[in-house]
Amino acid sequence: MTHGEAAHGKEDIPALMGKLGQAAHAAIRRLAITPTATKNKALIAAAAALRAATGKILAANAADMDEAAEDKGMGKALLDRLMLNEERVEAMAKGLEDIAALEDPVGKIMAAWDRPNGLRIERVRTPLGVIGVIFESRPNVTADAGALCLKAGNAVILRGGSESFHSCRAIMRCLTQGLTEAGLPEAAIQLVPTTDRAAVGEMLTMTGTIDVIVPRGGKSLIKRVSEESRVPLFKHLEGICHTYIDAAADPEKARAIVVNAKMRRTGICGATETLLADEAVADDLLLEIISDLIHAGCEIRGDKNIQSLDARVLAAEDADWNTEYLDAVISAARVKGVEGAIKHIADHSSHHTEAIITEDAGVAEKFLSEVDSAIVMVNASTQFADGGEFGMGAEIGISTGKMHARGPVGVEQLTSFKYVVRGNGQCRP
Amino acid sequence: MTHGEAAHGKEDIPALMGKLGQAAHAAIRRLAITPTATKNKALIAAAAALRAATGKILAANAADMDEAAEDKGMGKALLDRLMLNEERVEAMAKGLEDIAALEDPVGKIMAAWDRPNGLRIERVRTPLGVIGVIFESRPNVTADAGALCLKAGNAVILRGGSESFHSCRAIMRCLTQGLTEAGLPEAAIQLVPTTDRAAVGEMLTMTGTIDVIVPRGGKSLIKRVSEESRVPLFKHLEGICHTYIDAAADPEKARAIVVNAKMRRTGICGATETLLADEAVADDLLLEIISDLIHAGCEIRGDKNIQSLDARVLAAEDADWNTEYLDAVISAARVKGVEGAIKHIADHSSHHTEAIITEDAGVAEKFLSEVDSAIVMVNASTQFADGGEFGMGAEIGISTGKMHARGPVGVEQLTSFKYVVRGNGQCRP
Repeated sequence: MTHGEAAHGKEDIPALMGKLGQAAHAAIRRLAITPTATKNKALIAAAAALRAATGKILAANAADMDEAAEDKGMGKALLDRLMLNEERVEAMAKGLEDIAALEDPVGKIMAAWDRPNGLRIERVRTPLGVIGVIFESRPNVTADAGALCLKAGNAVILRGGSESFHSCRAIMRCLTQGLTEAGLPEAAIQLVPTTDRAAVGEMLTMTGTIDVIVPRGGKSLIKRVSEESRVPLFKHLEGICHTYIDAAADPEKARAIVVNAKMRRTGICGATETLLADEAVADDLLLEIISDLIHAGCEIRGDKNIQSLDARVLAAEDADWNTEYLDAVISAARVKGVEGAIKHIADHSSHHTEAIITEDAGVAEKFLSEVDSAIVMVNASTQFADGGEFGMGAEIGISTGKMHARGPVGVEQLTSFKYVVRGNGQCRP
Repeated sequence: MTHGEAAHGKEDIPALMGKLGQAAHAAIRRLAITPTATKNKALIAAAAALRAATGKILAANAADMDEAAEDKGMGKALLDRLMLNEERVEAMAKGLEDIAALEDPVGKIMAAWDRPNGLRIERVRTPLGVIGVIFESRPNVTADAGALCLKAGNAVILRGGSESFHSCRAIMRCLTQGLTEAGLPEAAIQLVPTTDRAAVGEMLTMTGTIDVIVPRGGKSLIKRVSEESRVPLFKHLEGICHTYIDAAADPEKARAIVVNAKMRRTGICGATETLLADEAVADDLLLEIISDLIHAGCEIRGDKNIQSLDARVLAAEDADWNTEYLDAVISAARVKGVEGAIKHIADHSSHHTEAIITEDAGVAEKFLSEVDSAIVMVNASTQFADGGEFGMGAEIGISTGKMHARGPVGVEQLTSFKYVVRGNGQCRP
């Protein structure tokens, strides 16, 4: 029996991993908007915690080393990888500080261009989401990988080798302390609390909660993981797109955009399926929009507030908020300001395209930065979610995945890249 | 029985798909270095072929429509998607010409920077490789997706819906004619010649030959494909890195780089495992390099020519060319110039890092452009394949995959992006 199996029988693995996945997924909303200084604070506090816990870490490592040497007859190279000493703990702590000193990539504008119709399009860096790291004997990967993923705004689920279980747990406690001191969710960095191998296979299938897995270790580990892998997909399952009318919306823009976003073509993935309106939006404006939609042949399924405005509005059921109609039907709800809209979208969106209508630049920026969909828009129709409209010329589809082809997939997205290095005799010292 | 099953029984699917995959994989070496003008010629010739074959295409489509209407009781919307007419064939032909008019992304420098040691690093666009497209009733996807993939230098395997089988085959013939007229391999665009559903599941598992799959169709198709998918990986299985000494190599650089590339640290993935030397490289230089390596404690396993130079060189076996030693062992072979080196690397490399040593700028460019590894170098040690050495600060690993994290995976590679669109009321016409 390996460590941890006492606590978690084999039959619990999917449930256990599901819980870790859900916790990580819940944490990423928060991490995506965490300022650089806060992430750095967590890293620097974790470095201090590592230094302070050196004795405990070395004791945990000694337990691992004893078991490895006695029970498992590991080779000398593996024992060296597993072994920690004061110098190696200090190197780990220094590594966290180095990562804190790196530039934060999140929010950087990667490219920007203007369309002839006046739309400005930016491609902006976002976290990947939840990263799974599967590694073997080196306990320092707990700190290194955890810190790198956090710096990029991701939640990470770490699954270390059974031989380094005690060491990894001791290091993990320091990372958790750093997260807590910075006020960040503990689920930002999690260590799988079992050495059951079934956890690795389970991670590979968690396509709903883990965005990418990084296997770090010897050839046999990579091979095992690769054998269970599949060809990656550029796809979107559905486009449950939202248009949110803010209190500071221009009424004429709101009227024109909502009808266009829903009714121009109802069968495309960029069609708006849910209308959200701030509580502060005037009933009169909403009544006009309701009339516009009904006049255009659209059925409206509203929450109680929207229903109370116009007898022609049907009652929305719970399922309506998660439905891609691809038809002349729209769900509609009142929300509490942009915060309410962002929350509704996080709970129900398919992360395809969402739009805000507002003249308040600050509110617009909040929406654009906090909504994690492939395409976020201000004061424009969601029906512009299209490679041709983006100026890509042609598209093979729209991707809601988070790899390099997210949003419209045109010719450029059908490429990869390589690094070309030119030297004049450089040797690595 | 659906179309095509007569020719291919269920038991043949893995073999059939394996053949398509191998053919596509063989085609990509060629496609990656095909000039833009040649790809455009194929697209324009295919457009002309489509127009010329309008009658045949409509006849094939009529057969599909008859079967669909009579045998399967398809809905009106699906029949409309399946239906072709002269206008739609013309739109397909025009679509190919539009894609020919798009800018070719391959070879574009995406980013470039200099390192303090004088290394210049560029990130250059390459094709993704082999793309699988799984679609449903719309036969025009054959032309659209085939053309987009080709324009980006990819080979594509198209798997259309059974209901559009005749139409897709008729369109495919025109694409093949375009490829042939441009002198491009027919395997650049292939249509799966069976409607057996097992082909879809098989495609998902072909991680060795298909780089990414684009499912295009209704929710049930995407759902089915997604259910069989796995979390994507950032990984490399091994680093079988090559250093090639060209006839125009500077001897001193060659000596210094080869020993460093192999022996600085033998256990890292960027260590050179195979030394290639042009037939024109002087025996004396190779003898010096052999002595340097042996003096540094390295075992050399050579082909006949290398063995004949020095009695201390052991005989290489076939397996040596595919072996990552991670130890003080190197395989060594003579090759016929840069062409021979590129071929050897294409046959044996793990697509991690390869280097050329040459003072001939033209030969260097050929190597850098035609070798499809995550990192290609000129006049530098392969041991520079490292996030820290690239100036990324820290890395979580090195990826030989072709998604956005290829080569060193640092903080930036642990991010995704989103599109931010700013308008002032734009509605889509």
